[in-house]
Amino acid sequence: MNNYKSGNNLPNIAIVGVTGLVGRTFLQVLEERNFKFNTLRMFASRRSAGTKVNFKGNDYTVEEATPEIFKDTDIALFSAGSAISKTLAPAARESKCIVIDNSSAWRMNNEVPLVVPEVNKHALKKHNYIIANPNCSTIQFVAALKPLADKYGLNRVICSTYQSISGAGQKGIDKLYNELEGNYFDSKPIAYSLTFHDADGDEGFTNEELKMINETRKILEIQDLPVAVTCVRVPTIGGHCESVNIELSNDFNINDIRDLFANTNGMILMDDIKRDVYATPAIVNGSDYVYVSRIRRDSSTKNGLYLWVSADNVRKGAATNAVQIAEALIDINNLN
Amino acid sequence: MNNYKSGNNLPNIAIVGVTGLVGRTFLQVLEERNFKFNTLRMFASRRSAGTKVNFKGNDYTVEEATPEIFKDTDIALFSAGSAISKTLAPAARESKCIVIDNSSAWRMNNEVPLVVPEVNKHALKKHNYIIANPNCSTIQFVAALKPLADKYGLNRVICSTYQSISGAGQKGIDKLYNELEGNYFDSKPIAYSLTFHDADGDEGFTNEELKMINETRKILEIQDLPVAVTCVRVPTIGGHCESVNIELSNDFNINDIRDLFANTNGMILMDDIKRDVYATPAIVNGSDYVYVSRIRRDSSTKNGLYLWVSADNVRKGAATNAVQIAEALIDINNLN
Repeated sequence: MNNYKSGNNLPNIAIVGVTGLVGRTFLQVLEERNFKFNTLRMFASRRSAGTKVNFKGNDYTVEEATPEIFKDTDIALFSAGSAISKTLAPAARESKCIVIDNSSAWRMNNEVPLVVPEVNKHALKKHNYIIANPNCSTIQFVAALKPLADKYGLNRVICSTYQSISGAGQKGIDKLYNELEGNYFDSKPIAYSLTFHDADGDEGFTNEELKMINETRKILEIQDLPVAVTCVRVPTIGGHCESVNIELSNDFNINDIRDLFANTNGMILMDDIKRDVYATPAIVNGSDYVYVSRIRRDSSTKNGLYLWVSADNVRKGAATNAVQIAEALIDINNLN
Repeated sequence: MNNYKSGNNLPNIAIVGVTGLVGRTFLQVLEERNFKFNTLRMFASRRSAGTKVNFKGNDYTVEEATPEIFKDTDIALFSAGSAISKTLAPAARESKCIVIDNSSAWRMNNEVPLVVPEVNKHALKKHNYIIANPNCSTIQFVAALKPLADKYGLNRVICSTYQSISGAGQKGIDKLYNELEGNYFDSKPIAYSLTFHDADGDEGFTNEELKMINETRKILEIQDLPVAVTCVRVPTIGGHCESVNIELSNDFNINDIRDLFANTNGMILMDDIKRDVYATPAIVNGSDYVYVSRIRRDSSTKNGLYLWVSADNVRKGAATNAVQIAEALIDINNLN
């Protein structure tokens, strides 16, 4: 295989938004997974250009992200917000550079695959140089739903989330620590509180809830899947948790459900409530896996099941999933 | 009316467990509501006996709670834990003193009314001197469900809770503050984490979840009501919130639901997500009302409805509800 711009068998990669929380985590994940590349370039806004970022002991100079930077790049990992993605991703496409975009800008575009590799890697076979990384709360949700959908079928899913403040980036984490020290700067404190994301629509749903509903249907390829979601920000630093009630299409044995998750790629079963064994934000923090706990039969409906689904929202919910998409693209040899 | 031991028209009241978080709140609520009594006595464990507690500018000496203390008492508000309730409540009954008990000891006893006055005041008409105050998470839950049950009927209810640490009393609050300062003393930290209550049964439910399911059915007098509950402790200080999905028996207009809650005694409608208007722990803290927010149609099921239900768990979820029970008993003249 030699379809890279480098002319050799390794891709030239770039990170756009490298100075942010997810951008820095891209680097950690690339290093941990020993991701092979020919060249690595680091980009951010003009404000951050010129700063140094260390990767595997070498200093890299952050460059300003502009439409011209993609000519020699094969794969660009984006985490720079929707506005920048909307501008720069088409420029990358023009240069035949694949964008793996962590923003919400392209997720619901019909030409853009929205991918969690364990769930719908096949969607990567057809792309137009832009691939979307799902919302953090969606990634762990569909990871838990997919094996159930395949084995039992899904009739309805109800989810209430417990989302950490790292979902709002480093500025969110700083805000929480400031508030815990008694310094409040806005009317929507995180410390000791429970808050909702912004809402722009008229049906009472927050944007985060609509993302999770729509993205879940797209990834699972069940366009009319009945999904009810309430997304809540809680004062935790890292790690999203989700309380999920599922109505399966077919009956199940609870031990088979445990076995299913224990044997699903990318998932960890952690479930013994009598011994206080379950995933918490602290436990999933730093992990690339999706954890399933609190597996119970929900006898309030036919074929009902409870799950508690947890993952590191910055890693599996963002950076790790994006790198896994890059790995999957290389694996299926579908860079262009 | 003169059926009190005092011989006059005001009852002799006692507080058992006055030095605890709920005990101290009993006093605040009695003062705020200008609760009329003939005598007030304060009791606690032997360890706290002799300490002084101030009420309306007067110092009261805390006495040791023993089986003999109820002879001259008409109404005793208990918040001293299940073990003490199991010992002392029968002694109070022997002395024809009504116990309003905040522990879980008597709640599911068939002879004991389990009461939220706005919901099932009528259950107070028949009692055997022991009346149970429901679990904090149950009180606000049934307050929100009752008007819906009456007007539309309930087919199924799914709830995920966001419970503050004050539900574990002053020691819980102290534990959270200690942890936020970096001092961890046990393996189940509250700070920056999400935890579950203890579980003794074999079906994977925590004791808190079973309380909420069983108490809800008893209070609403719907013994087979399909209820699914996941109870989660979040790092907030005071104020429980609940994410609720309800399947009503009959169709509804969403504005009628808003009107219903706006006009229900004891409830406050606070719902405009586009303007960030919803109840948070900080907002309900110190309030005696149950707040309803995030009212949305849940189109994932027939006649589906979302609610976000919030209340001060130490006040409406414990002390205020107990005092309201006492007021209701006096009102219906059913002290013996």
